[in-house]
Amino acid sequence: MNKPDYQLIIIGGGPAGLTAGLYAARGRIKTLLIEKGATGGQVLLTDWVDNYPAFAEGVSGFELIDKMTVHAERFGLEKKFAAVESLDLQGDLKKVQLDSGETLTAQAVILCTGAKPRQIAVPGEEELQGKGVSYCATCDGPFYRDQEIAVLGGGNTAIQEAIHLTKFAKKVTVIHRRDTLRATAILQEKAFANEKISFIWNAQVNEIFGKESVEAVQILHNEGLTSVLPVTGIFILIGVKPNNEVLPLHQLKTDQEGFLITDSEMGCFDLPGVYAAGDIRSKKFRQIINAAGEGANAELSAEHYLGTLPG
Amino acid sequence: MNKPDYQLIIIGGGPAGLTAGLYAARGRIKTLLIEKGATGGQVLLTDWVDNYPAFAEGVSGFELIDKMTVHAERFGLEKKFAAVESLDLQGDLKKVQLDSGETLTAQAVILCTGAKPRQIAVPGEEELQGKGVSYCATCDGPFYRDQEIAVLGGGNTAIQEAIHLTKFAKKVTVIHRRDTLRATAILQEKAFANEKISFIWNAQVNEIFGKESVEAVQILHNEGLTSVLPVTGIFILIGVKPNNEVLPLHQLKTDQEGFLITDSEMGCFDLPGVYAAGDIRSKKFRQIINAAGEGANAELSAEHYLGTLPG
Repeated sequence: MNKPDYQLIIIGGGPAGLTAGLYAARGRIKTLLIEKGATGGQVLLTDWVDNYPAFAEGVSGFELIDKMTVHAERFGLEKKFAAVESLDLQGDLKKVQLDSGETLTAQAVILCTGAKPRQIAVPGEEELQGKGVSYCATCDGPFYRDQEIAVLGGGNTAIQEAIHLTKFAKKVTVIHRRDTLRATAILQEKAFANEKISFIWNAQVNEIFGKESVEAVQILHNEGLTSVLPVTGIFILIGVKPNNEVLPLHQLKTDQEGFLITDSEMGCFDLPGVYAAGDIRSKKFRQIINAAGEGANAELSAEHYLGTLPG
Repeated sequence: MNKPDYQLIIIGGGPAGLTAGLYAARGRIKTLLIEKGATGGQVLLTDWVDNYPAFAEGVSGFELIDKMTVHAERFGLEKKFAAVESLDLQGDLKKVQLDSGETLTAQAVILCTGAKPRQIAVPGEEELQGKGVSYCATCDGPFYRDQEIAVLGGGNTAIQEAIHLTKFAKKVTVIHRRDTLRATAILQEKAFANEKISFIWNAQVNEIFGKESVEAVQILHNEGLTSVLPVTGIFILIGVKPNNEVLPLHQLKTDQEGFLITDSEMGCFDLPGVYAAGDIRSKKFRQIINAAGEGANAELSAEHYLGTLPG
């Protein structure tokens, strides 16, 4: 086998990748973490993190990621900001092709590419992205000061961000396809108590109107009627889909939605030396704390594979 | 069904239990966390935690647990300090019998009873516990100022604590059954660079001598010879065994060592409403961060079971 560039390459710098990187750096594994944008993954879409254990007063998404990054760097983690174009995960030498044309090799790879917000695929959505259609309240909330906006969704992210958006907007209408919220109870309480938030139940959005920017959304009620809600912005927060575009899906085992199926120690099936951790994994609950835990497991499995952990 | 006392009872207040408690409190689940001693579990046996992500400079075990406890209490987690005597986990109403005679009931239970240090079962070990035989460097290290002591083991805990013990002891001899350490590389480097630490490789301890307190240990070398090492203390740090004494093992699925086998979302097999998280689980790597991640997963699974998470 040709000498690999690294013992371990970690793809993606959210909580899973940064934790894997921390463990690898402490384990003195020759490691590269590749991130295409800023480290942090979907945490950067979050205004405030109230459930990462031991940050008793909560912490902003940016600060949490900054601390995770500094932590891994304290032990010497090497990072590279680059976009991966393709991967070959078969055989003893894993190949990572960057869009710059450069190819990097490693004995082991941990896939932490994460997930991204799902779209609704209705007329107007593509055309008005960045012009009133948003998937990130933290990013875009401040643009809607004193305006009337809508949030689509009923889970933790939707309700947390609806509450956050009331800091800016005059009125936030939550549109949800059911008659109850999925969000955890404390978020429901806060939302119901917030005078700026109102709800349209049993409904979805089937068109977004606007010339230069969003002017209204058409609501399809479950009983079949439609109505029009005038808003200058709509935040679509209805769950995630996997960031799997650069992954060799023919080599990997995935679920129906395209998330990666692993064994209990984060190993990708039939690919020795390949692991996955965090939101890219097929699993029921996507949380920062379990992404971090999986990052640690994946790295320890990789160390074991690399033979640095005898027995 | 009789009305249960709680929706959820969490047994054990280490990182897994405290994280489950944090999530349950945020989820407004009527929850009781039962802990028999101090919250913290095995973290309290650790001097310093350097790999809990986002605590970039490290944190003492006590401080980390304090922050986790304050965090869960901020959202109103109810705790009870009591010893569990037995559990009945079958049926819709789970029963928790305390040694005070009191019986508490809940719809769901999360088992976070953790693990404890393994013993070596050699002559002198039982008799000299607390008189030079220790399983906790943090607890007992300060007693050995300027003395010569031994550490048995070669994993992360053994080597981290050997380093810690050099703050007190004049000389620390690490006795390990192999010729390489299992501990992660950064710990090995620190130990090899520490002039107070020496090693006896390929050897085990087969007797501990001492009248009032430890005076020496007998070392059995792998090639069959024995030797005597004069020490006033020996720290036995060779792994863990499950805290499963109060668990109804006939109702639970366990591995050969008695750790609990769960599905990927922390459910205990054939017992709807029963979950396990943290060191009590059958798994390869026992870390604070993955215990916390599992605590979150277990609680979210329990919420789902309780029907508070529709869909």
